[in-house]
Amino acid sequence: MKFTAMLTKRFKDTPADCQIASHIFMIRGGYMKNVGNGIYSLFPITKRITSKIERIMREEMDAIDGQEVLFPVAMPAGIWKESGRYDAIGSELVRFKDRGGNDMVLGMTHEEAAVQLARETADSYQQYPFMIYQIQTKFRDEPRARGGLIRVREFTMKDAYSFHTSKEDLEQYYMRCYKAYERIFARCGVPEVISVKSDSGMMGGKVAHEFMLCTPVGEDSLVVCRECDFRANMETAECVYDDLGGEMKELQKVATPEMKTIEDVCAFLSADTKRSVKAVVYQKETDDKYVVAFVRGDIEVNEVKLRNYLKSEIYPAQELEKAGLAAGFIGPRGLSSQVQAVYDISLKTCPDLICGANEEGYHLTGLNMDRDVGSVEYTDIGKAVQDGICPVCGKRSLSLTRGIEVGNIFQLGDKYTSSMGMKYIDKDGTLKTPIMGCYGIGVGRLAASVCEAHHDDYGPIWPMSIAPWQVQLCALRADDQEVRAFADKLYEDLQATGIEVLYDDRPVSAGVMFSDADLTGIPLRVVVSPKGLKNGTVEISKRDKSLLEKVEAGLALDSVKTLVKDMLAELGCDR
Amino acid sequence: MKFTAMLTKRFKDTPADCQIASHIFMIRGGYMKNVGNGIYSLFPITKRITSKIERIMREEMDAIDGQEVLFPVAMPAGIWKESGRYDAIGSELVRFKDRGGNDMVLGMTHEEAAVQLARETADSYQQYPFMIYQIQTKFRDEPRARGGLIRVREFTMKDAYSFHTSKEDLEQYYMRCYKAYERIFARCGVPEVISVKSDSGMMGGKVAHEFMLCTPVGEDSLVVCRECDFRANMETAECVYDDLGGEMKELQKVATPEMKTIEDVCAFLSADTKRSVKAVVYQKETDDKYVVAFVRGDIEVNEVKLRNYLKSEIYPAQELEKAGLAAGFIGPRGLSSQVQAVYDISLKTCPDLICGANEEGYHLTGLNMDRDVGSVEYTDIGKAVQDGICPVCGKRSLSLTRGIEVGNIFQLGDKYTSSMGMKYIDKDGTLKTPIMGCYGIGVGRLAASVCEAHHDDYGPIWPMSIAPWQVQLCALRADDQEVRAFADKLYEDLQATGIEVLYDDRPVSAGVMFSDADLTGIPLRVVVSPKGLKNGTVEISKRDKSLLEKVEAGLALDSVKTLVKDMLAELGCDR
Repeated sequence: MKFTAMLTKRFKDTPADCQIASHIFMIRGGYMKNVGNGIYSLFPITKRITSKIERIMREEMDAIDGQEVLFPVAMPAGIWKESGRYDAIGSELVRFKDRGGNDMVLGMTHEEAAVQLARETADSYQQYPFMIYQIQTKFRDEPRARGGLIRVREFTMKDAYSFHTSKEDLEQYYMRCYKAYERIFARCGVPEVISVKSDSGMMGGKVAHEFMLCTPVGEDSLVVCRECDFRANMETAECVYDDLGGEMKELQKVATPEMKTIEDVCAFLSADTKRSVKAVVYQKETDDKYVVAFVRGDIEVNEVKLRNYLKSEIYPAQELEKAGLAAGFIGPRGLSSQVQAVYDISLKTCPDLICGANEEGYHLTGLNMDRDVGSVEYTDIGKAVQDGICPVCGKRSLSLTRGIEVGNIFQLGDKYTSSMGMKYIDKDGTLKTPIMGCYGIGVGRLAASVCEAHHDDYGPIWPMSIAPWQVQLCALRADDQEVRAFADKLYEDLQATGIEVLYDDRPVSAGVMFSDADLTGIPLRVVVSPKGLKNGTVEISKRDKSLLEKVEAGLALDSVKTLVKDMLAELGCDR
Repeated sequence: MKFTAMLTKRFKDTPADCQIASHIFMIRGGYMKNVGNGIYSLFPITKRITSKIERIMREEMDAIDGQEVLFPVAMPAGIWKESGRYDAIGSELVRFKDRGGNDMVLGMTHEEAAVQLARETADSYQQYPFMIYQIQTKFRDEPRARGGLIRVREFTMKDAYSFHTSKEDLEQYYMRCYKAYERIFARCGVPEVISVKSDSGMMGGKVAHEFMLCTPVGEDSLVVCRECDFRANMETAECVYDDLGGEMKELQKVATPEMKTIEDVCAFLSADTKRSVKAVVYQKETDDKYVVAFVRGDIEVNEVKLRNYLKSEIYPAQELEKAGLAAGFIGPRGLSSQVQAVYDISLKTCPDLICGANEEGYHLTGLNMDRDVGSVEYTDIGKAVQDGICPVCGKRSLSLTRGIEVGNIFQLGDKYTSSMGMKYIDKDGTLKTPIMGCYGIGVGRLAASVCEAHHDDYGPIWPMSIAPWQVQLCALRADDQEVRAFADKLYEDLQATGIEVLYDDRPVSAGVMFSDADLTGIPLRVVVSPKGLKNGTVEISKRDKSLLEKVEAGLALDSVKTLVKDMLAELGCDR
């Protein structure tokens, strides 16, 4: 395509609301246009990228026996009521009424639709296992759309659903899909994506992994062991603590007037915060009852773990006095019976703790949990810390990092098949409930993530496999007859061999042409100039600066063909 | 793919609510599943068909310099308010509020989004013309979803939008797209699709064509000349009438008690209905005012023409007496001044007419419009009739037929660019408003229409270009070692040459296997049987019964390759 024909517009300045590289470059480079909060139209350049990503996804899904289907975007609420999610999910789920007054939803994920499609169809054990997938638009009414295509409200997603007659079969297929995901990310140019264990959240099920591109601008906190394979989302990362040692002391009440934080109290008593008890108060969404989470003073409460333990959403508590709680002075001993206490396992590591006395202006020292509080259930509700202990190898080798979630996979079990009454006839003639896995990758977010991973100060560096065009042909001084003739011919010849070329023959300066090319991010560049042709050469370079060479003009076609082929092969792609 | 692996289920009986062939076969053959009123999920077999249709569309859109983009499904209402359609369109347009309380719509078409994307981007005349298209989900809250994929509420559509700086350029591009549409339909196996002039309806603009597949089950009425090229949708078909002759007579008032239809009155007076005036009363949606449409007694009112003439939606009038109208006795002479009269051109053809006297129980005879009503404006608001006069060649050669609209194209003019303030800087430095064309084809409806056009009593006959698989390989008695070995090898060999094969190796009778194959509709079938192999042959047949031959087993692979290639080439497809 000629550069001039491409519908797009580039901007020199960084728009005010753009903070991360992919957002900045995709706005500056004319990749997309904001239509509304978290809603974008994609310009042709981006559609070319996402179409290539979608093709890679299709190939990999087909390779693990996936069958492509298409579910509706707008669905009657009925099937969402069957699964229970119509009521369970908050305002992320768009609900509306159709002209007949019927409740409808916009699909934010399609487990219900997958079960609805398969439930009367796959009625014999002989039809299992099978996997169906689609690449389709979803709408999730995110409260905080941000970062361009990283977190949007409307997005295109590849979502897959597998059905099985046994846990073993699900686990086996889950691993096949896990590996297919690794291939998808590698082929899209981000082999560095890691997988972490994750919380299954509203999806249900027990085993789940997220695929994460590690980057400081990521929204997710990750815990990664420097010594072994352990990798988890902060939400679920298991915590392990060393015993702090020390001896039991006498329980004493001390006046701590006006000291409401554990740091103040420990400083006042010259104690390490590790040897104290922190109390954080929540209320449960299910019944508004008060919950006090007790953790060691140096640990933060992991609200996802707490939520899972309580089996309820939680929110920061209001009006503590209503529950008989003395804000700033709450402790495990003598706690109001109106509130539920949850004890973190970190509290077991110290025989001698400082804690609130449940009385305005007083703390206790020398608290021994067993002696002074009694036999309580301890659970893991703490947040992993930098250089904390790895729950797998046991070394002090945890690193905290950040990542963008580019994919996720879930072993759903029977959450949907059971609630929606899906059955099959087993070998022995009995009716059984199949179990499911589900597997998602957002197309636009993956494109933006690749840009996060591969860019320089001047623009994206698209991997050859998903680049909008494979080669950018720059004719410097296309008004020069020789340049024009050579470049036109090379353009034709490259296209004739099936290579995708963006041909810039505008009468603009080299500076403008190259900075536009940088924003376009095409991995291979061929520059035809009067000076070069005088010496019988053209210049071939890679966008990532790993190559810059003058090639004999007559060999340019073959050179480019070889480079494109090699760059694709490096990514595990043959076209 | 193995037949057993395909997620689908077939039914012997025709479901109660299915009336047309495509609906019947696509339900019986397990092509789709109803999720809600006018909402379907597509099984893998259908997705394979629609993906191929989409590929053909992409190739043809790219061939006329189209650039693929992606617009949102859910849009802020703002841009629809800008164009005025937020208020102009009724409940077909789904409106909802997002979590922030903002007005949103689901896209039923994307003119607004196209202008929003292009308006700040294409700001110089040098960027024109250009065309952008997408293949995306739309939702139109149809009051009467029916006929399976023929009329649904949610559908996938290829919609294209072109932008121009002159009428000539738009007209030229419109013709290019017209021809691209002809190629799309031909390549999808329905070259018999015709184009008809149509009403542009809610889209705006003046010139519009619909592409129609003629079939008795079609929803649209078409007017086609048997002698020349004239083809139009009934909605817009121009009417021409012969002069009926005869002489003026004296105007007389006659008592016609209890005779409220024009047929009754004409029978009573022994007159031809052609020599009478029919009055049909409507009210305008804009102001509820009464309108009487007067047409010759043998002609029906064409409400689309009337609506366009009035520039208002209309509805059948209520409470005629309120407007001073005597139901059954309404005529042009002495009509209440509260109502607007619209006169059809057919009334000019007869000097001596029977009409209502605007008085309960009386009609007039001998009405001469010029003499008794005076100089009025005549307009064409009649419905074309079978064997009526062709407005182009003038012969009595009109045929009424029915068709399914499979595509439409519009010259929109500046309806959207003007209302939404899109401008470009012209050569002379002045700001101008570009004009637009738009071009749509529904993917699922096209698939179903192909099935309407190509089926027999047993199932669809998919054209090779869009068939879910190219070849169905049937192993009769796959338990026979020789059959199994030969069929397995042929399956591998065919796939290795890039041919798509659905391989049925189920232990079922020939009857079941063949009737399932008929429902699957794959255009080429290869049957491997013990009996055939004993004679050293396999059977190759076409689904449309135009071929049935025994081929030497060793030549089967080459025969099939050649047949697939030839059948694709016949449709103008090379793969």
